[in-house]
Amino acid sequence: MRHDAIEHLVGLLSKLPGLGRRSARRAVLRMLQDPPTRMLPLAEALTAAASAVRPCQLCGNLDSTNPCRVCSDPARDQDVICIVEGVAELWALERAHAHHGLYHVLGGLLSALGGTGPADLSIQPLMARLAEGKVREVILALPATVDGAATAHVLAERLAGTGVQITRLAQGVPIGGALDVLDDGTLAAALKSRRAI
Amino acid sequence: MRHDAIEHLVGLLSKLPGLGRRSARRAVLRMLQDPPTRMLPLAEALTAAASAVRPCQLCGNLDSTNPCRVCSDPARDQDVICIVEGVAELWALERAHAHHGLYHVLGGLLSALGGTGPADLSIQPLMARLAEGKVREVILALPATVDGAATAHVLAERLAGTGVQITRLAQGVPIGGALDVLDDGTLAAALKSRRAI
Repeated sequence: MRHDAIEHLVGLLSKLPGLGRRSARRAVLRMLQDPPTRMLPLAEALTAAASAVRPCQLCGNLDSTNPCRVCSDPARDQDVICIVEGVAELWALERAHAHHGLYHVLGGLLSALGGTGPADLSIQPLMARLAEGKVREVILALPATVDGAATAHVLAERLAGTGVQITRLAQGVPIGGALDVLDDGTLAAALKSRRAI
Repeated sequence: MRHDAIEHLVGLLSKLPGLGRRSARRAVLRMLQDPPTRMLPLAEALTAAASAVRPCQLCGNLDSTNPCRVCSDPARDQDVICIVEGVAELWALERAHAHHGLYHVLGGLLSALGGTGPADLSIQPLMARLAEGKVREVILALPATVDGAATAHVLAERLAGTGVQITRLAQGVPIGGALDVLDDGTLAAALKSRRAI
C-alpha cells in the first residue's frame, strides 16, 4: 500500500493555491524534522479555525466573532459601506488601512459566461442594510474588469432609488508603476481622468 | 485582541517553505470556503503523520513503517547502498525509479563554515551496516558542491579499507539542458568526461 501518511498529507497540501506537489513535499519534509513543534500546532490551528470562523451575518467577512470585528467596532464609520467581491479584497483593503467604514461582501461578480446572476450575489442583504437608512455612501470597490464593470453597473442601477451616494475607486496609474509597462486601457483612463496640480 | 484564529493559522502556514504571507492568506481563504472538506482533513492528516512517521532505524528515511518500505522490501538489491544527503534526495531518487538498491541518509554534509563535522553525520551507522559484509557497492549520490565534494572525499577515505566498491554519480550536461545557459564548471566537466558514441 503506497498511499501512506506522508503521501496523503502531500496530496492534501498540494491542493492549496500556491503550493504544487514539489513545494508540498518540501513543506512536509520540513515539518517532519520536528513534528511536535511544526506539525501539531498547525493541525490544532486548522481545527480551531474550522470551528471558530464563520461568515459575518452582517457583511459576509470571515472572522471568529460574529458579527465580525469590523462590524462590531463602534469606532468605524457606520454610514459608509464599501462593496467588495470577496473576503480577500476586504482583507486587502483592511491591510491598506484606507477604509474606515464598513464592508459588504458580494460573494462574486456578475458573469454571463460563468453563469452568475444577481440572485447568486449578496445583493438582497445589502438592500436590507441600506433600507435601515443609516448609510450615506456606498463605495463600489470592484475590479476594473468586464465582470467588475458589469456588476458595478447593475449595482448602481439598483441603488439609484435609495438616495445613497454611490462612488467607485479611482482608476489610473498604480503607485510605483512605470508608464511604459502599463496596458493601454490604464494609460487611457489615467489620461482621461487627469487632475490639475 | 487582533491575534485571532485566522491570523494565527496564516502565521503558521506562512512559515512553511514556499509559502509567503500572501499565499498563506489565499490558502486559508480557500480552505475557509468549506472547512469540513478542506480544513479538517488536512488537520487530521497532519496529526496522523506526526504520530506515524519516524526515521527508519536502518537508513534514516522518513516513513510510517520502521524499517522503512525501501529497507523492508525484499525485492531491492541488498548489496548496493546509495548515500544521500537527506530524505529529500532519497525521495527524488525514488521518484526517478533509477536506484533499485538500499539507501543511507547522512543527515547533512560536512561543512567547515557550517560547523558540521563527521560526528554530526550518520557515518558510524553506515560503517556498521557495511561491517555486516553484505554490501558490494556504495554509490555516493552527493551534490556537486564544495561541501558535497568534501563529504564524498572523506567518505571515500573511510570506506577505502572496507573492500566495498565506491562509485559516484556522473557529472555532465543535464537531460534537456541547453548548453548556452550551463555554467562553465558543468561544461568543463562534461567535456572532460566525454564518451565515445
